[in-house]
Order: sequence, then C-alpha cells, then structure tokens
Amino acid sequence: MADEVVLLDSTLSVYGMRVRIALAEKGVKYENRDQELDFMTRNKSDLLLKMNPVHKKIPVLIHNGKPVCESLIIVQYIDEVWKDDSPLLPSDAYHRAQARSWGDFVDKKVYDVSRRVWSTKGEEQEVAKKEFLETFKVLEGELGDKPFFVGDTFGFADIALVTFYSWFYSIETAGQFSIEAECPKIVAWAKRCMQRESVAMTLPDQKKVYEFAMEMKKRLGLEN
Amino acid sequence: MADEVVLLDSTLSVYGMRVRIALAEKGVKYENRDQELDFMTRNKSDLLLKMNPVHKKIPVLIHNGKPVCESLIIVQYIDEVWKDDSPLLPSDAYHRAQARSWGDFVDKKVYDVSRRVWSTKGEEQEVAKKEFLETFKVLEGELGDKPFFVGDTFGFADIALVTFYSWFYSIETAGQFSIEAECPKIVAWAKRCMQRESVAMTLPDQKKVYEFAMEMKKRLGLEN
Repeated sequence: MADEVVLLDSTLSVYGMRVRIALAEKGVKYENRDQELDFMTRNKSDLLLKMNPVHKKIPVLIHNGKPVCESLIIVQYIDEVWKDDSPLLPSDAYHRAQARSWGDFVDKKVYDVSRRVWSTKGEEQEVAKKEFLETFKVLEGELGDKPFFVGDTFGFADIALVTFYSWFYSIETAGQFSIEAECPKIVAWAKRCMQRESVAMTLPDQKKVYEFAMEMKKRLGLEN
Repeated sequence: MADEVVLLDSTLSVYGMRVRIALAEKGVKYENRDQELDFMTRNKSDLLLKMNPVHKKIPVLIHNGKPVCESLIIVQYIDEVWKDDSPLLPSDAYHRAQARSWGDFVDKKVYDVSRRVWSTKGEEQEVAKKEFLETFKVLEGELGDKPFFVGDTFGFADIALVTFYSWFYSIETAGQFSIEAECPKIVAWAKRCMQRESVAMTLPDQKKVYEFAMEMKKRLGLEN
C-alpha cells in the first residue's frame, strides 16, 4: 500500500512548520490541508475535531488514516517511520535524550515568551523582553561554538527551535531590540539552518509574519 | 565498565516515582540520592544544580557521570539503554506515538489539576475538582476496556499516570468526592498496575502522602 499522508496545518504555525521541515528532510510527499488559523473565532474543522479530539489543535499528521498529534511527537514518528533517510534523532541514546530535552525546553519556554513580546505593551512587554532574552541566553550558551544543537548535524532540537526564527522580525520590531546584538550565535545558527532547503522552503517571510502579528494585535485590541 | 547509575530523587515526587518504576522494570541497580523535597525553602543541593542547571529539578538520572533530566525523557532513555528487558515503549511506531501522546497529556494536565484539588479551598477548589474530573474522564474514555493504556502490556503511558494514584486519597479527602465512583475503570487499572512489583514497591502509602499534603497546606497557610 502506498503511504497516504495528510497534514492538518496552518501556514504561520511554528508547530506546523516543524512537521513540514521533517517531511521535507525525509522527502515524504503529502497533502497539506490548511486549517484557517483564526485566533478570534477559533474555527475548527470537523476533520480536525475528529482527528484530534483531545487537544483540537494543529498540526495533525494523518498517516494511512491514523492521526498523530503534537508537533515534536509527530517529528519523532516521521523519523521512526521513514528511518532510512536523513535521521533527525541522533543514533546514540544519550544524545537522543539531549535532543528531546532541548525540544522540551523550547516547548515549555519559547512559544509563550515570544508571543508575549509581540502581543503586549508597557511594563508587561518589558517583563516579556527580559524573559525572552534570559531564555535565548540559555540557548545561546548551550549552542556555544557548535554548528547545531546536538551532534554535528541538523536534527530534532534544531527543528524544534528554528521555526521561531520566522517570528524574530515581529519580536524585534514590537520589542524594539536586536536579537542578534544579544544572541549572535543563535542568529548565525538560524542562518545556517536556513541554508537547508527543508527550512528555507518552509519558513514564511518574516515581514509576512509581522503583518499577521499586527493584524492579530489589532483584533485583540492591543495596538500601541 | 560497569554502569554507574545515580538517581537524584525525592520519595513523594510523582516524577521521581516514574523513573524508579522504569529502573525496577529493567532490574537496574542504582544509588538513590534523596534530595529534600521542601516547597518552602526550595533547598537545592550543589549536585542537583550542577546536574540540572536549566530546570534545577529532580528527578535527574546520572548514568556514568552524564545527567539526563525530565522524567518522561529519562524513562525513554532507560528503555533505550537497557533495551533487552521489559520494553516500556511499544515496538510499533504508531503505538509509540500514542504512548508519548498520553504521557504528554498527563504532563500537561494531571499534575496541575491534582495539586489544585488538595491545595486550594472554596470556589477555587470546586473549579479544580471539575477540571480534575474532566481530565480523568478523558483518560477513562481512552482506557475503555483495555487492560493498559497502549497495547496489552504495562508500559510508558501507564508509568506516566500511575504514580498519581499515590495522591488519590489526598485528592479525594481534600475534595470530598470519590474518584472510583466517577472513574471506576481508572481505579481498576491503577489496582492492576499495583499488582506489578515495580509499582507496588515504588508508590508510597497513600496515607503518608496525605500527611505530607496536609503539612504542605499548613505551611502554605491554606488550612480550612
């Protein structure tokens, strides 16, 4: 049976992008069913509600009719099913644990603090900026002079974080600071990741993300 | 080289218990260095701060000098390193993804809502009870008539959840309701898990947990 692969996704979702990068790395052909990303109406398609009844969130990978949810679990699944091409998790158990730990760190820290920098103002935004830089200094320290986060090749932890690079312009513009001035190694690493076709073809233009962020701010009544 | 395995742990931690169950399932000998669990002073040993500088939390598994953090990442690491005995993750990639998804669900939902039932009062506690039952009804529905969460054998998702069983008496007593009346399949499943030596030897007496919870409430100034 030929694999039938469907992705419930949304163009500007940093979580959806992770799955698209993993599928591109593996050369898996799939149908992308874009689910309208709408923070205001929170419209959910019947297909999404059926395939992810617990979390009701994209991305969902539907492989031969069976759903897999949560972006980093999907990336691991993709790595395990299409295991002959471009391994994403390291072969060594200790490095696999390290890769999962950094993925977990990104999930617990980066999304929330990134969103707060562009969506708030005043003192709340100052707190968010401080926390954003604290979080990224931890990542900068872990990266050090390595080319990628775990091992010498692009993989799981890089995929977990790099999709946030598409929001850097929004974060810098809203927060009026330079991420590169504070975390030069992170920005150099992100540019290194962007040299990979899988990343370059997936990450949307940062200005397009900014337009979306400003539209969201307007709808949320958070304009300065 | 013989394996040197040290666990930074705390007796009543539901996260530490997960790692102890996994090590017992695999028959791994290890040294348990109990870290005083103290919510008030938040004392952290130098060893813990050195081995888990990012999260500063137990459990940490130190295997031949190298630390692995975050309980479910540790359980996966144990399963991958000691892979010949008692597999904890299913062999099939889809079932592995399901096991990880339910582990993730427990991490995101169960700890917070359990803690809120025993540590709050009044309206806040009523909200927590409602959310606790909503969360456990999802788990009850997923379990259905299966003996264990994923596949027919005790494994990763069961380990993720069963450690919370040690807190059921505290939750029921503080919240004045019966979990078994609302979620009989979950309680039957927990008792099934308790028939395994790895679980029975690890889970502390529920009354001892209750004493600890009441002591915590007193220190937090939350007594009724």
